[in-house]
Amino acid sequence: MASILLSEPAVQSYMFYSGVLALKMLGVSFLTARQRYRKNVFANEEDAKAKNGKVKFDDPDVERVRRAHLNDLENIPAFWIVGALYLTTGPSSALATNLFRIYAAGRVLHTFVYAVKPLPQPARGIAFGVPFFITIYMGVKVIQYYSGAM
Amino acid sequence: MASILLSEPAVQSYMFYSGVLALKMLGVSFLTARQRYRKNVFANEEDAKAKNGKVKFDDPDVERVRRAHLNDLENIPAFWIVGALYLTTGPSSALATNLFRIYAAGRVLHTFVYAVKPLPQPARGIAFGVPFFITIYMGVKVIQYYSGAM
Amino acid sequence: MASILLSEPAVQSYMFYSGVLALKMLGVSFLTARQRYRKNVFANEEDAKAKNGKVKFDDPDVERVRRAHLNDLENIPAFWIVGALYLTTGPSSALATNLFRIYAAGRVLHTFVYAVKPLPQPARGIAFGVPFFITIYMGVKVIQYYSGAM
Repeated sequence: MASILLSEPAVQSYMFYSGVLALKMLGVSFLTARQRYRKNVFANEEDAKAKNGKVKFDDPDVERVRRAHLNDLENIPAFWIVGALYLTTGPSSALATNLFRIYAAGRVLHTFVYAVKPLPQPARGIAFGVPFFITIYMGVKVIQYYSGAM
Repeated sequence: MASILLSEPAVQSYMFYSGVLALKMLGVSFLTARQRYRKNVFANEEDAKAKNGKVKFDDPDVERVRRAHLNDLENIPAFWIVGALYLTTGPSSALATNLFRIYAAGRVLHTFVYAVKPLPQPARGIAFGVPFFITIYMGVKVIQYYSGAM
Repeated sequence: MASILLSEPAVQSYMFYSGVLALKMLGVSFLTARQRYRKNVFANEEDAKAKNGKVKFDDPDVERVRRAHLNDLENIPAFWIVGALYLTTGPSSALATNLFRIYAAGRVLHTFVYAVKPLPQPARGIAFGVPFFITIYMGVKVIQYYSGAM
């Protein structure tokens, strides 16, 4: 019986950074709300009415934050599952821990350079690409390890 | 060795409400389809052709349901991971169970007031906010508990 | 104490196909990038500037891939959670393994007929519908099994 011990450092690291990423992702909702209130533009009649604002779907500042949010949805849930499965493949604790750490740092940076303070490329490209390839690396390890189950 | 017992009431509650939320989220696809058929507007040429409808990206009824769906994607997967990690931090069974229950009720209500029968604010704000802060609460508990793994 | 053994064939099948689906979903980012570079249209000023392209939000080829990606987000994370919970309900190994296999095949096909080589309906409808109802089936099994925890 293979098992995952909650007391293993790599497992605890996964738990910690998965929690950080969840809070970071939820935090983008605040960034969207901040832009909506600042520009007074909303996506629904009932919201605009409640705030004396207007309905608008192409405000550039709001849409930028929404793109950052969507990019989170395209990447972070994949990390949650792939990171957990990767832990079951017996990776070195130091490697796994560092992958989780760099992943989380990259995604926090991505939100910052996308939705808080836009910087010229390749800032966002790097902040996207490093975590992206970490997930791919872990995913490849998972499917190699379990390839007998195809 | 810390462990999660599948027989614990809070764990079973997590399983139950996670399943409910998955079905609820998938159900929004039916709500979108219902509006598309009712208004006869589609997002793809091949769909419009199959139904003698037209391609349209700004139908207000369809877009409203799609916003409700996107809001699910921004929140429910975060609940799935954070709820599971929260169970590993040794919460009181009664508290955890009630958080899961209120979370699920809030998200069901959110879909209802957003995509089924739009109500004036703050109806949707409350149905969004209560589950949102439950996830943040559980996320904070997780990162506090595993902060040694930073 | 009920438990999930990592050595069980159905569990290993879940691990394998969950990894495959994560890589597939991440792969859609490459399909989007391919269309953006081919058409030279970008979603951000800083990206357009870096590539001498232009900002455009309604390129049909780019938007088609983005819709395929969003459809992944609406379905695949729900599979990850519901598939894992389903394994705890004691399903037959052969049934579970086949559901995972068909689900993954369906979603790969969905991406292909949506974002790589668009085909007339009902190609995409079937590639969407079969995995969709597999998730619903597993979700119903989960909430039935844990209904005592409501």
